[in-house]
Amino acid sequence: MKAIVHVALKNGVLDPQGKAVADTLARMGYKEVESARIGKVIELDLEDGLSEADANARVKEMCEKLLANTVIESYRIDLQA
Amino acid sequence: MKAIVHVALKNGVLDPQGKAVADTLARMGYKEVESARIGKVIELDLEDGLSEADANARVKEMCEKLLANTVIESYRIDLQA
Repeated sequence: MKAIVHVALKNGVLDPQGKAVADTLARMGYKEVESARIGKVIELDLEDGLSEADANARVKEMCEKLLANTVIESYRIDLQA
Repeated sequence: MKAIVHVALKNGVLDPQGKAVADTLARMGYKEVESARIGKVIELDLEDGLSEADANARVKEMCEKLLANTVIESYRIDLQA
């Protein structure tokens, strides 16, 4: 089973990396870009035999403890069989 | 319109950041994690009035020139109205 974890900065949190990308694109002539925000995707390969409920609970724990900084980031977990 | 660009390392390219995450999770007791790979998501806000075909072509150009390193990374573009 695979768990795809999407981690993004919460709304209102400054994203300097996104701003750098947006500014660079504007300088390169891509004036249609109004803003950019950058997030992470963490793809975990999980051992077989885990139930979906267990996998979800364990990955949620991993997010809270390591994968996301929940003060400034939100996360979303997608499980794929 | 929003363009969501997913950038991931191509298969076969070493992902030291993903390995660090997988090793750390294993040390923390999450033995069910076999491997981890880390990618980026770039969310671009595009000005209104662009057609979907134009937006796709322009964002593809941005990916080739700036957003992805196409030697080692692949990308996927999702447009959202």
